[in-house]
Amino acid sequence: MKKNILIVPGDGIGQEVTAVGKKVLDKIAEKFGHEFVYDEALIGHVAIEATGEALPDESLQKMKNSDAVLFGAVGHPKYDNDPSAKVRPEQGLLKMRKELGLYANLRPIKLFDELLGASSIKPEILKGADILFFRELTGDIYFGEKGRKDNGDSAYDIATYSKFEVERIARKAFEAARTRRKKLCSVDKANVLETSRLWREVVQQVAKDYPDVEVEYQFVDATAMLLIKDPKRFDVVLTANLFGDILTDEASQIAGSMGMLASASIGDGTGVYEPIHGSAHDITGKGIANPMASVLSAALLLDISFGLKEESNAIINAVDAVLKAGFRTADIADASTPKEKILGTDAIGEEIIK
Amino acid sequence: MKKNILIVPGDGIGQEVTAVGKKVLDKIAEKFGHEFVYDEALIGHVAIEATGEALPDESLQKMKNSDAVLFGAVGHPKYDNDPSAKVRPEQGLLKMRKELGLYANLRPIKLFDELLGASSIKPEILKGADILFFRELTGDIYFGEKGRKDNGDSAYDIATYSKFEVERIARKAFEAARTRRKKLCSVDKANVLETSRLWREVVQQVAKDYPDVEVEYQFVDATAMLLIKDPKRFDVVLTANLFGDILTDEASQIAGSMGMLASASIGDGTGVYEPIHGSAHDITGKGIANPMASVLSAALLLDISFGLKEESNAIINAVDAVLKAGFRTADIADASTPKEKILGTDAIGEEIIK
Ligand SMILES: CC(C)[C@H](C(=O)O)[C@@H](O)C(=O)O
Ligand SMILES: CC(C)[C@H](C(=O)O)[C@@H](O)C(=O)O
Repeated sequence: MKKNILIVPGDGIGQEVTAVGKKVLDKIAEKFGHEFVYDEALIGHVAIEATGEALPDESLQKMKNSDAVLFGAVGHPKYDNDPSAKVRPEQGLLKMRKELGLYANLRPIKLFDELLGASSIKPEILKGADILFFRELTGDIYFGEKGRKDNGDSAYDIATYSKFEVERIARKAFEAARTRRKKLCSVDKANVLETSRLWREVVQQVAKDYPDVEVEYQFVDATAMLLIKDPKRFDVVLTANLFGDILTDEASQIAGSMGMLASASIGDGTGVYEPIHGSAHDITGKGIANPMASVLSAALLLDISFGLKEESNAIINAVDAVLKAGFRTADIADASTPKEKILGTDAIGEEIIK
Repeated sequence: MKKNILIVPGDGIGQEVTAVGKKVLDKIAEKFGHEFVYDEALIGHVAIEATGEALPDESLQKMKNSDAVLFGAVGHPKYDNDPSAKVRPEQGLLKMRKELGLYANLRPIKLFDELLGASSIKPEILKGADILFFRELTGDIYFGEKGRKDNGDSAYDIATYSKFEVERIARKAFEAARTRRKKLCSVDKANVLETSRLWREVVQQVAKDYPDVEVEYQFVDATAMLLIKDPKRFDVVLTANLFGDILTDEASQIAGSMGMLASASIGDGTGVYEPIHGSAHDITGKGIANPMASVLSAALLLDISFGLKEESNAIINAVDAVLKAGFRTADIADASTPKEKILGTDAIGEEIIK
């Protein structure tokens, strides 16, 4: 199979982890006889520095023309405490999501057995937890009108959802539930928000077409609590953009570390695959970032965009084998990990490739 | 001291738990020689059934005329899956918050040592955690304009904040931090939301008046993760209405159970004290609800609205003694709790009163 893969490292540790992800893809190509042709593109802070824009047109065109994108992260502390900055790295990410029509963000939360000890949550609560989040990614308060009023003394953000936007992701989530444990939990705040009431109406409607899937409706606050109290009760979780942002970061603790979690953003065209962690400038350049989320993003890419299930599983098994052999990055090491088994970004990458 | 206390049980287990809270207040009055005069008022589903309104004027007047309100919970499953219901129990709660100007909701998250085992989180992660949330309660997407457009095909909710709204709660949070470990974490989503950027600007401004308080800014998604990963890093957490709703429910797991958490809503006039748990219709009428959140709400009421520190501590110590004696309600019992020590709502109330 011949495919064009665009590598978009972005900022901070995005550079370091996508480099490992790419090497793993190379190894797969070699082993299974595929040809992957790579190109690179800028986004985020590095793009602003180079071009003044968070997502230059050239990058967007390259994305549209590639078969899949392996993405790193965006963000820089410089902007975080400057609420008045006009151009921000995150705008590049949001524009990419909108322009590529990436309306569904899939975040599988599954704990490798070897990491049971790495989480703050008790092993007996975690063991067997396996959740697939469907986070809506191109609507909600992220993309509505926003601004200042009253001479700058007040600010507003408008959240919106259309029935069409809810229905298309709901169908994808129900289809996925069918291939899993046939349970779907739709999360909203329908006791307060009108967008949530519309969301719930649509999901109730779509649910009629999937009588074999057991549906549950939860409020976002209760869900934030239940994810920790009893993660095993969830199978597929379907939710809006902002709630999904919060709940999936929280749920990373079920998997031991953010450093292990991959995500797939899919929609109308090219799919984008990225770790759920951010640019982590505090550890950038130290060579200690955990590249496994990027490696597992490459596995999702092969599976979802190219239909290469065997190749995808080969990567997941390699990560599992490295963990079984006792190797760890610093973020997932615990008191029982011997010093010599704690590896840096590249070294653990080499182990995975082996 | 002579004071008027309004009991507003609301729906579901609200009835059962406020009854215990009131008995404990009675005991305090007797023991410390105060006179508490009680009245009752309707809110929520029970108010809708009786009057057609979620917060009848009579209830609101009684609230305004009392020295403090001991509140239960509102909500009924009947409305939850009927997104088109026009009158909803929650409207009563939101109207009360707005009409009484209850702009600051204080939620102390502290684990009684005896409950270390009751949480899903590992004891070594929890031990020593002590967080005080300041959740803004009368602004944000809860109170902005909302509705349908495009012939009902799309919905919107407007989030707003003014500088004034942020400043008044920020000052309260900084003042509280001064009396504690002098750390404040302001939580927002300033990388996406304009309301968050305004929020952060104002907090940065207010912080200048409190140079002795160490301030940190976090995004809401990262905070949802950090609360579980390392709850001890937080002291005072200041955040907006919607984020506070989600994060405090999540943080309830730090305290072992929602059934233990009290909150104080304060502002321009009468203060309202209530459990953070909801109406819990699944266990209503079974006599097994944990009344300790209501009892601890009564303790907050005495402390904050009446300045009765000693009386307030007497209640907290009584709850602690009951836990030390090994008594539990079902929600906080674990495998090691002997059957005869698992008590119902009234029975554990009697133990606390003793
Ligand atoms: C960087 C930020 C804008 C982004 C989001 O909020 O969607 C990130 O947190 C994510 O989850 O991908
Ligand atoms: C019942 C609901 C409207 C309410 C809220 O969202 O504020 C509740 O969850 C709370 O936290 O008091």
